Amino acid sequence: MSNFLVIVCMPISGSVEASMNAKNANGVAFSDGRFVPVGEAKISVLDWGFSRSDVTYDVVHVRDGSFFRMDDHLARFERSMLGVRLTAPHSMAEIASIAERCVALSGLRDAYVAMICTRGSPRVFGSRRPQDCDNKLIVYAIPWIDVIPPDVQARGAHLHIASVPRIPPASINPAVKNYHWGDLTRGLFEAHDAGADTAVLLDRDGYVTEGPGFNVFIVRQGEVLTPDRGALEGITRRSVLELCEMLAIPARIAPLRKQDLLSADEMFCTTTAGGVMPVSRIDDHIMSGGKPGKLSSQLKSFYWEQHRAGWHQTPVNYSA
Amino acid sequence: MSNFLVIVCMPISGSVEASMNAKNANGVAFSDGRFVPVGEAKISVLDWGFSRSDVTYDVVHVRDGSFFRMDDHLARFERSMLGVRLTAPHSMAEIASIAERCVALSGLRDAYVAMICTRGSPRVFGSRRPQDCDNKLIVYAIPWIDVIPPDVQARGAHLHIASVPRIPPASINPAVKNYHWGDLTRGLFEAHDAGADTAVLLDRDGYVTEGPGFNVFIVRQGEVLTPDRGALEGITRRSVLELCEMLAIPARIAPLRKQDLLSADEMFCTTTAGGVMPVSRIDDHIMSGGKPGKLSSQLKSFYWEQHRAGWHQTPVNYSA
Repeated sequence: MSNFLVIVCMPISGSVEASMNAKNANGVAFSDGRFVPVGEAKISVLDWGFSRSDVTYDVVHVRDGSFFRMDDHLARFERSMLGVRLTAPHSMAEIASIAERCVALSGLRDAYVAMICTRGSPRVFGSRRPQDCDNKLIVYAIPWIDVIPPDVQARGAHLHIASVPRIPPASINPAVKNYHWGDLTRGLFEAHDAGADTAVLLDRDGYVTEGPGFNVFIVRQGEVLTPDRGALEGITRRSVLELCEMLAIPARIAPLRKQDLLSADEMFCTTTAGGVMPVSRIDDHIMSGGKPGKLSSQLKSFYWEQHRAGWHQTPVNYSA
Repeated sequence: MSNFLVIVCMPISGSVEASMNAKNANGVAFSDGRFVPVGEAKISVLDWGFSRSDVTYDVVHVRDGSFFRMDDHLARFERSMLGVRLTAPHSMAEIASIAERCVALSGLRDAYVAMICTRGSPRVFGSRRPQDCDNKLIVYAIPWIDVIPPDVQARGAHLHIASVPRIPPASINPAVKNYHWGDLTRGLFEAHDAGADTAVLLDRDGYVTEGPGFNVFIVRQGEVLTPDRGALEGITRRSVLELCEMLAIPARIAPLRKQDLLSADEMFCTTTAGGVMPVSRIDDHIMSGGKPGKLSSQLKSFYWEQHRAGWHQTPVNYSA
């Protein structure tokens, strides 16, 4: 006899799941083929997604009940999986539907939706071959998070230029979203030790890359610039470049060095989890009198205006 | 009413747990404060140990019912945690006792025991500060695995020099055991595509570092050499250097380049999960007529002889 007696009554129909809504405002996940409260979504400690960080993912946001650029996020997730030879056990159409279902079951109007594909574990115990693993899909919707809290955004974030160099693209491709965050975590600790809110990392050659969970931009003599290397090709970053074009603000992707940050007129960060987030200080360089800059604020407002105007919005079907 | 009814009867005493033995030959884990079959050991998808690979670990082996160099592994695990500012919710003495208990409950005489500390999740939802997390401990014992299977060791492994450079120490300290394996995984895929068994990675400057889960050594004109950079300070690596001293074989840590591999007289890999593993071919360079080399074989035999002689052995108390 086992000393572990486990009786689980699982939901067996959509209508049963729908009644989860009220209980799942903390988030809902799709894990091991079923929908569960996000706190119950777990992966085995033997899954190489954990023990080798052999995993890729994407994150899309839901604002006021609509996905933003869902197709772009799905396309990037598909490219990322291909880039590291992972194959989700569901089609992209199914993944889109699962993501929508997670949001619907949570009832969240503002959410952050992660789609994750892990390597899994070898079918034969002891194999060291990634080819011997069945890859796994996890999707979850959780309440909205700002990477930089709203009160910090309002005064402009304080950034620290980390001493730890970003992992080089030759070793880990930053365009394939990954959880290799050891350098970013060290940068965060450094930033907090220095009294700053968050960090930006340079590469080994001194070029600006990105921060923990966001791309960076500077404004210099009216022109908007973002690094050309070592960073995720962020979808909010792309959105900002498109918004600049719509507003006839000159913008381009360019090599940027530490000194470009320390002499910038303005600076802001971009991310799916927060949008356009103004920066008012980097190391000892204070910008716009220690407040969010004019262009940064304009782009932040315009970004949310465009959301409300339906730009790249896909409404969530909450009764699906 | 919840649609999930879960009734769990947990083991409540040592004697109850002891009867798990027969059922747990696949492994036993300590997770969320209790001992469970390893298949049930899981971490939340929201644990930064997964979603930021913010985790460190160590692995010790048990052979013929004894731990090998347990104190060295515990000391390294403690240093690793300190290195990335993780604090296990248990003392080192407790961790040693939990590790022994996992082995005892599994009944395994030959095992691989992992001790893992993850960042956990923030106490306040939405925080991005590592300081706001309660760190977690997971320990598990699973059956013995050879990183390179015994039949491959017998003929000598075939290695491939990967084109992907190892993540540099400045970004991720390889002396702190970590799961940032994206480069190693790419190397493994390259090796398998090339028909080799496993890979060895160079750094960006062309110096030899390590392979996926092992250190490398070459033998050149009777001298044993292992890379001085970009690699874990392996405990089996240290053991081999000590064994060489005991056998009066000249050995040292030195910078090694690709050409040193391609002109080596012999080569072998070392790891906790397999010991000393001879290599008979690297890329197109075939050594010792395509068989394990003489010194490599001698060191492999001596390594296991020393185990049997009690060198650095700590017997597991299976009735603890």
